[in-house]
Amino acid sequence: MKTHSEKITVRYAETDQMGIVHHSNYPVWFEVARTGFIKALGMSYSEVEAKGLLFPLSELYVKYHTGALYEDELVITVQIEKLTGARMVFSYQVFRDRDNALIATGSTTHAFTDPNIRVMNIMKTHKEIYDMFYVAWKE
Amino acid sequence: MKTHSEKITVRYAETDQMGIVHHSNYPVWFEVARTGFIKALGMSYSEVEAKGLLFPLSELYVKYHTGALYEDELVITVQIEKLTGARMVFSYQVFRDRDNALIATGSTTHAFTDPNIRVMNIMKTHKEIYDMFYVAWKE
Amino acid sequence: MKTHSEKITVRYAETDQMGIVHHSNYPVWFEVARTGFIKALGMSYSEVEAKGLLFPLSELYVKYHTGALYEDELVITVQIEKLTGARMVFSYQVFRDRDNALIATGSTTHAFTDPNIRVMNIMKTHKEIYDMFYVAWKE
Amino acid sequence: MKTHSEKITVRYAETDQMGIVHHSNYPVWFEVARTGFIKALGMSYSEVEAKGLLFPLSELYVKYHTGALYEDELVITVQIEKLTGARMVFSYQVFRDRDNALIATGSTTHAFTDPNIRVMNIMKTHKEIYDMFYVAWKE
Repeated sequence: MKTHSEKITVRYAETDQMGIVHHSNYPVWFEVARTGFIKALGMSYSEVEAKGLLFPLSELYVKYHTGALYEDELVITVQIEKLTGARMVFSYQVFRDRDNALIATGSTTHAFTDPNIRVMNIMKTHKEIYDMFYVAWKE
Repeated sequence: MKTHSEKITVRYAETDQMGIVHHSNYPVWFEVARTGFIKALGMSYSEVEAKGLLFPLSELYVKYHTGALYEDELVITVQIEKLTGARMVFSYQVFRDRDNALIATGSTTHAFTDPNIRVMNIMKTHKEIYDMFYVAWKE
Repeated sequence: MKTHSEKITVRYAETDQMGIVHHSNYPVWFEVARTGFIKALGMSYSEVEAKGLLFPLSELYVKYHTGALYEDELVITVQIEKLTGARMVFSYQVFRDRDNALIATGSTTHAFTDPNIRVMNIMKTHKEIYDMFYVAWKE
Repeated sequence: MKTHSEKITVRYAETDQMGIVHHSNYPVWFEVARTGFIKALGMSYSEVEAKGLLFPLSELYVKYHTGALYEDELVITVQIEKLTGARMVFSYQVFRDRDNALIATGSTTHAFTDPNIRVMNIMKTHKEIYDMFYVAWKE
């Protein structure tokens, strides 16, 4: 199973008045890791969209282990958890870079759809993209 | 079990290039409903924080049924799902106002902590707030 | 000169660790007021976009008078400041509802473009929209 | 005059349904460059805040030259434009990395305040921070 990591630095705008990162930023970071992963597989998500394929979320789960702070350097790691012709599940881990503390984990489930958000089976419509993900999942 | 609803209109800034609302906005809307709920129970979340009590998220779950669009009027409904002295679970439903279509559902789990994000048992430290939530949960 | 107002409540997610609203939210609120204004003139911005017309920003200016706080109820007021066939300037005032304190002022300049973000002269391409704005500006 | 640059990749969540980056993200990127700059001068903004000094914005200006797209790699450059004991102005340029196209320019004006957002003269209260900025401005 292939793994990909992206490094980010917590932005001031991502904090809230509790003094930690607002929880709504984690799905944005997951997306940074996920699209970096897809790019590393050889096709940017922009190219995927240009082929008439979208990956809207059908489910999101986040488990917050400890708060991230402004200026923390974080490593977001992503893998493919499950793949069918109709949908795909990614799982994520967020680590603090300086001490490798686990900050959060989570997963996102995506439907495969056309630009009008109608579900498709990509084993039929985009076999080369299915294969690209299959290899990343099983290898 | 008490239920509270807040109405919002989708903002342009909440859309993404897929032409639907970016999924990271749903936890923000859940929060709008949740803090409106707490206020309706008789104590604003600002007052809760002033009493040295915070509710950071420990878990977030969202299920996206269909995409919300710019200018859609949405109703976000919230209830207490579970309550102990150490944590609380809220559940949410997002409806499109004009046809009552279900857009999304979800839940958030919150720890009860002090301003340094240390876990507390509010049955001991903030009994009046525990009771306020208990009544809203059980009634 | 027509004026339009929208009322919003500050969201927790809009605060930062300074304990006040992060400055990047004001352009989002300006947009809430602006698109509410356009709708009140008789055409939603969704309908404007459906006619092949976009209003991307060419300039943004914000003056922050005092910080807005979580749960503050704010009134955002908007007017058309200037209109030509190629661009339009809106000006804004943000007031705290409970005491009418002025929180911020600002302006946004918009180009009129097609969906490929190419500049157009709407006196030629969308005369009815130009007229709608002209009346709101001059009346 | 010292200059500092930070490189970012446009996030999917930063786009809107116009297919370009939503204009409210530019002040967030300016902040990324600005806090990177302060850190490069030898003191992180977290350390500045720990010394009881905040820099809330009093003014923001952005000029949008052309739209930035999802996955664009951008370089944000920042300099100190003006410094007094009571306030500071930073100016910014946003370039697209692959062709050096100018995407946007702008400036932010900051008051020097204590944690209660009361204005201070840092020539008196935080001379070492004033000197740090003065050198970056004049050198």
